[in-house]
Amino acid sequence: MSETGLPPPFPAAPELQTQQWFNSREPLSLGVLRGKVVVIEAFQMLCPGCVSHGLPQATRIHDTFNAADVAVLGLHTVFEHHEAMTPISLAAFLHEYRIRFPVGVDAPGNGSGMPKTMAAYRMQGTPTLLLIDRRGRLRAQHFGAASDLLVGAEIMKLMSEPPDP
Amino acid sequence: MSETGLPPPFPAAPELQTQQWFNSREPLSLGVLRGKVVVIEAFQMLCPGCVSHGLPQATRIHDTFNAADVAVLGLHTVFEHHEAMTPISLAAFLHEYRIRFPVGVDAPGNGSGMPKTMAAYRMQGTPTLLLIDRRGRLRAQHFGAASDLLVGAEIMKLMSEPPDP
Amino acid sequence: MSETGLPPPFPAAPELQTQQWFNSREPLSLGVLRGKVVVIEAFQMLCPGCVSHGLPQATRIHDTFNAADVAVLGLHTVFEHHEAMTPISLAAFLHEYRIRFPVGVDAPGNGSGMPKTMAAYRMQGTPTLLLIDRRGRLRAQHFGAASDLLVGAEIMKLMSEPPDP
Amino acid sequence: MSETGLPPPFPAAPELQTQQWFNSREPLSLGVLRGKVVVIEAFQMLCPGCVSHGLPQATRIHDTFNAADVAVLGLHTVFEHHEAMTPISLAAFLHEYRIRFPVGVDAPGNGSGMPKTMAAYRMQGTPTLLLIDRRGRLRAQHFGAASDLLVGAEIMKLMSEPPDP
Repeated sequence: MSETGLPPPFPAAPELQTQQWFNSREPLSLGVLRGKVVVIEAFQMLCPGCVSHGLPQATRIHDTFNAADVAVLGLHTVFEHHEAMTPISLAAFLHEYRIRFPVGVDAPGNGSGMPKTMAAYRMQGTPTLLLIDRRGRLRAQHFGAASDLLVGAEIMKLMSEPPDP
Repeated sequence: MSETGLPPPFPAAPELQTQQWFNSREPLSLGVLRGKVVVIEAFQMLCPGCVSHGLPQATRIHDTFNAADVAVLGLHTVFEHHEAMTPISLAAFLHEYRIRFPVGVDAPGNGSGMPKTMAAYRMQGTPTLLLIDRRGRLRAQHFGAASDLLVGAEIMKLMSEPPDP
Repeated sequence: MSETGLPPPFPAAPELQTQQWFNSREPLSLGVLRGKVVVIEAFQMLCPGCVSHGLPQATRIHDTFNAADVAVLGLHTVFEHHEAMTPISLAAFLHEYRIRFPVGVDAPGNGSGMPKTMAAYRMQGTPTLLLIDRRGRLRAQHFGAASDLLVGAEIMKLMSEPPDP
Repeated sequence: MSETGLPPPFPAAPELQTQQWFNSREPLSLGVLRGKVVVIEAFQMLCPGCVSHGLPQATRIHDTFNAADVAVLGLHTVFEHHEAMTPISLAAFLHEYRIRFPVGVDAPGNGSGMPKTMAAYRMQGTPTLLLIDRRGRLRAQHFGAASDLLVGAEIMKLMSEPPDP
């Protein structure tokens, strides 16, 4: 399975750049979550594959693993139809779809349509699932549908590693 | 199966009251469509049951029956989160979800949150599927998920009836 | 939709040739069922498409339509792995899968592997869905997966026709 | 997630007692597979939950993990309808359902209907998924449907452990 994750040396995961958070009393960052495995579901609320596959998978991850070990975040990375997917629309979407985990709104980009965190990770589109280890390194980046079996294994692999070098 | 449709005498279906149409060069009405069986999928773009069940079923109906006999319409009946489901957002939604059939935007209500056509039909929520016969009478109104087998049968029942009394 | 059914003139449906029945106190025949629409699901118990699609669809038909109008039958048409799909095995299969409608065992063929009723209908394989009208004529024969929407419409079309010429 | 696996001290997994193997040139045993993580899907060919959930999951496990690390086996544990699920019927079933991994036939029990390996593991029914670590110890036993996310994590946990004490 090593072919599905990124090969070593593992790069430091770029810090999140967000403008707003839902389902969290305070802004979240990779720095604050260091020590946990971090799972980030990058999505757009009007992306069919995100609604049918990516977000339900993120919810299952959130429900399956212990929050002390694994932090699950959503990241709203709008790169098209910006006027249709504003934070006001996102708030209604999260309510209707019963999304309980924290969701950050990716910071608007400079000039291009792609927001800042999405650009920093060079994502190809949505949904994209990011797995970050306890030491803050990017270990897997899946564009499109990744199977639950594979993602479950990858998360456990990172859980099994010690938090410090 | 007679218990699933409405009992006779069949009421005249209230005319559509819309403010805008997508996927149609001109506004549509029950008057214009008289003579065809009319299938109307009343939905909200952020309603999970509409996205997972109602709209895919409407698309299957659109793909299965001959357009000369059966007209399939969407009706965007927003009664909550109005600011999140504007026509601008709806345009992006229809594009992303590849909805090809005509979709009307229900006219805003007077004071209450419920739009005019939705109120005229006394709908209980979304998704709601309306079946209207060739003579413009309301024959079935399903709130929630109705099975394809039942809906296919109900449509054919109306197709088998003559257009004029 | 007329292209999905068989074109007129509609042939008389060949009579069933069976060696045994389950879920029925007496042997069934098209002759006995004349006046009803008859739906026959031809299947093999070890055919994956029959288990995942054909038999669940037949059960939905059985649950949706009134038994006074529509008779649903299974027909076990074994044309391969005969020793693995004997009536003894079929009895256990019907019990485990909670099949409630009558199921006949197609009579063994003469020499070839194909049983008699299957040969008389020139079926291409399993699952095959047969629709027979109130006058005993074969009106549709679907090999493989037919959609619920289409099948529901076809059954209603036959229900809407008078039993006698 | 520790609550889903068995608590320590971990018992030695009882050796398989089989009468016949499919998809394997020679009989398999836990002894021979020592050093690998072993995944065993205990099933009956006429058990609906095995066909719809258990066996497809076992196939996904077989397709996802490297055979050098994880051995996937089926175990046909017939405890009811014995005459309907003989090895001859099983051979046809495995062919029709394209099961590629090795499948052993559990040895008939003494007197009771339950076969020997099934009894040794005190299984409650089928499907049952067994996970055995590299040292031959039983680490998880799931009766019914276990999620892919959980099973993927459990397998990786065992893969991450060293083969020797």
